[in-house]
Amino acid sequence: MSLKALDYETLNENVKNCQYAVRGELYLRASELQKEGKKIIFTNVGNPHALGQKPLTFPRQVVALCQAPFLLDNPNVGMIFPADAIARAKHYLSLTSGGLGAYSDSRGLPGVRKEVAEFIQRRDGYPSDPELIFLTDGASKGVMQILNCIIRNQKDGVILVPVPQYPLYSATISLLGGTLVPYYLEETDNWGLDVNNLRQSVAQARSQGITVRAMVIINPGNPTGQCLSEANLREILKFCCDERLVLLGDEVYQQNIYQDERPFISSKKVLMDMGAPLSKEVQLISFHTVSKGYWGECGQRGGYFEMTNIPPRTVEEIYKVASIALSPNVSAQIFMGLMVSPPKPGDISYDQFVRESKGILESLRRRARIMTDGFNSCKNVVCNFTEGAMYSFPQIKLPPKAIQAAKQAGKVPDVFYCLKLLEATGISTVPGSGFGQKEGVFHLRTTILPAEEEMPEIMESFKKFNDEFMSQYGDNFGYSRM
Amino acid sequence: MSLKALDYETLNENVKNCQYAVRGELYLRASELQKEGKKIIFTNVGNPHALGQKPLTFPRQVVALCQAPFLLDNPNVGMIFPADAIARAKHYLSLTSGGLGAYSDSRGLPGVRKEVAEFIQRRDGYPSDPELIFLTDGASKGVMQILNCIIRNQKDGVILVPVPQYPLYSATISLLGGTLVPYYLEETDNWGLDVNNLRQSVAQARSQGITVRAMVIINPGNPTGQCLSEANLREILKFCCDERLVLLGDEVYQQNIYQDERPFISSKKVLMDMGAPLSKEVQLISFHTVSKGYWGECGQRGGYFEMTNIPPRTVEEIYKVASIALSPNVSAQIFMGLMVSPPKPGDISYDQFVRESKGILESLRRRARIMTDGFNSCKNVVCNFTEGAMYSFPQIKLPPKAIQAAKQAGKVPDVFYCLKLLEATGISTVPGSGFGQKEGVFHLRTTILPAEEEMPEIMESFKKFNDEFMSQYGDNFGYSRM
Ligand SMILES: Cc1ncc(COP(=O)(O)O)c(C=O)c1O
Ligand SMILES: Cc1ncc(COP(=O)(O)O)c(C=O)c1O
Repeated sequence: MSLKALDYETLNENVKNCQYAVRGELYLRASELQKEGKKIIFTNVGNPHALGQKPLTFPRQVVALCQAPFLLDNPNVGMIFPADAIARAKHYLSLTSGGLGAYSDSRGLPGVRKEVAEFIQRRDGYPSDPELIFLTDGASKGVMQILNCIIRNQKDGVILVPVPQYPLYSATISLLGGTLVPYYLEETDNWGLDVNNLRQSVAQARSQGITVRAMVIINPGNPTGQCLSEANLREILKFCCDERLVLLGDEVYQQNIYQDERPFISSKKVLMDMGAPLSKEVQLISFHTVSKGYWGECGQRGGYFEMTNIPPRTVEEIYKVASIALSPNVSAQIFMGLMVSPPKPGDISYDQFVRESKGILESLRRRARIMTDGFNSCKNVVCNFTEGAMYSFPQIKLPPKAIQAAKQAGKVPDVFYCLKLLEATGISTVPGSGFGQKEGVFHLRTTILPAEEEMPEIMESFKKFNDEFMSQYGDNFGYSRM
Repeated sequence: MSLKALDYETLNENVKNCQYAVRGELYLRASELQKEGKKIIFTNVGNPHALGQKPLTFPRQVVALCQAPFLLDNPNVGMIFPADAIARAKHYLSLTSGGLGAYSDSRGLPGVRKEVAEFIQRRDGYPSDPELIFLTDGASKGVMQILNCIIRNQKDGVILVPVPQYPLYSATISLLGGTLVPYYLEETDNWGLDVNNLRQSVAQARSQGITVRAMVIINPGNPTGQCLSEANLREILKFCCDERLVLLGDEVYQQNIYQDERPFISSKKVLMDMGAPLSKEVQLISFHTVSKGYWGECGQRGGYFEMTNIPPRTVEEIYKVASIALSPNVSAQIFMGLMVSPPKPGDISYDQFVRESKGILESLRRRARIMTDGFNSCKNVVCNFTEGAMYSFPQIKLPPKAIQAAKQAGKVPDVFYCLKLLEATGISTVPGSGFGQKEGVFHLRTTILPAEEEMPEIMESFKKFNDEFMSQYGDNFGYSRM
């Protein structure tokens, strides 16, 4: 026995098996190039502030005051903070017992959970119970906690919808030793979801001895950017009820909508609209975050999940597990409070808040358009419009020669393409293989987050690279088709 | 198949099996009583700000400015922030790419990791590599990440030293499906650690088919409050080398020392002092936090771990797993930077910083003494002095009648005692059974954190309760003995 517990060979296999492409090979190479002095445009992760988005002023004022509560007694505080920010800071401090430096209840501050419940109630028109809302260090941690409760062993399946999917799910399922049951979305149908195919996936998993126990939807979609229609959500909920699946509704992009035909509608609302028995049967966990929307407060690590139709004893177990890590960080809990109860008309900061948030959302909408159009103007590239979320997910029709060259270089073809793109242009993307895609079809994912004024140049530089790539590897025959 | 994945009956058994007494039955009952309007003194968790400790001014100023970077352009900022706080805020913002709202590298900001490495180097006199330091959302998350890498199945043992132990370890080991191999500390020997007993524990585990792969030390100890001597640490490291165990050194209380005979000495320093081959062989992970010391910034959730003798491929795997949750919260990373590089002599804020931090530490030292003496003056209570950390862990010699009454009430005897204490006095403690203790011996754990001026009254009220309890259940014979 010469190996030690932290030698690679003896590590937990589940740890070694998991893949997380968003910060994988491409990201590591980009970081290296950056160290060497190359200008890198990090579009690998939905991280708006890293690409220049300014924080909203009001929430930052409130949290700054909560961090420095002694300022509230300073006679000059009114010279640099508006009165409504001061009042809000006092309000949030009154919800803590010991300010931002004290561990909160492991579920989060009761007062903030109440504000979240009120927000959900306003949004959906149905009651929401603060006792069934837990605050988390970002939505990621919430998803991991819930999957940890569900997954028991390799025979426990989690059906992932959509694939392509955000790899938090695949990575966490690997880490927990569960099994991912994939379900493919239809790219030619605007990344649509067909419930008949879901049934097939479940049947196939069963025939392999895998019990499918939960289903994930990401709405709006990452990386695919589609928004689910109400009709589609009803079908999904019906399906979950029939198959007795827990639905995990990842709704972190609910504020990021760039078209008017399909506004965001929450799984909870659709479920409640469907009435009994469904509304009392389907187990639903919905996730939200301060990282996205027009907030983009990724580095604060704030999120929540709401539980619907989850039995009290399970809620207690989830509470117990949350308590092992003591409490989510308190300043992000306050960001969450602020996100669900922003300034109201008449408040001193209202106009500025609306100006800032609208400015961000409208610009994102324009950027979604610029990017889709840019990709679609490139040779061998097709791209669905980004209806929501923060990503563009073009398909790259790689010529056979490129696929061969990739093979020779020991790379997956889309990794090969993305690495070349990175070296040539500094644009750091994530290969489609990191999210899952159909055999023989290749994509890349980029965020729509670079500054609007830099967008034309970035698309120009992409186009130039792609043209050169296609003429280097292309012939006019035998492109891999969708 | 009528059960759903989040019904209690079908939850992951590991989730159901884990216990976390610090926020267990006692805490839940205390929360209920508080809701009913009773004044509760929460001494169940080392949460200084919740009991009135004021945050240190300088670090809060710096982080407030980082949260509100637009203040740096405000001509009036100098009226409420000192110049060195402004300069430090600029420094930390320059280490981020996008301020506090951007996800950082999943290991934490490189610039802060460099400051941590410099701190470790100053402390120990040996080089420290920022690439081997990862920042985490509190030490808890770091411990969980590392145990996740180590534990593969039930046959993988983690030897815990000391037992009694902080239940983060037992709970996480359960959650990950590993096995805890207990090792008992000697209460009559001032909670001392005898390496011969360690060898016995390992041998016994082996005979049951359990491979012991890691060992935990908590130094200074929680709940036991002892400080390990350098000689003891050398024995432990030698033992880990012989047995090829990873040593997890939980050193979160390294600033909390209340005697002068045994100052804190890090496992890393002792290991390096021992020289090759040991210093190149023993795999060591050391943990630290902003939650303890004189900072007590628990709610910020900031921590780090340093890896020694861990192979690069393992470091990569740990990085990969950390990246699934994207990044630790950035404001706590800055607290960590500030903790490891506080104001220096000559800085504007230096005097105030020293005054505040010394004030807290000196008061803690006095409180440790008041508490130990208080407990030792009570009937059937004996208590070792709190040499370090934040806890007092008196043994309560429960009379047979009390043990019987507990049995009748369906309670573990020390839970019974602590519940009665809570109902009578509002003092919320944790029963010794939550940390592990020898059969038939009972303790409770309380923090030494209540405000110094309230201490006499709290000890008075404890004494009164204990007197009544002992006369209600006592006879003068047959106390359970140590
Ligand atoms: C679909 C989806 N879910 C969850 C998350 C996690 O976000 P956070 O942990 O920052 O709340 C992300 C982040 O990009 C995401 O895209
Ligand atoms: C021994 C020990 N380790 C680790 C921790 C975790 O601290 P945190 O996660 O707040 O850094 C604690 C908290 O009380 C502790 O007592």
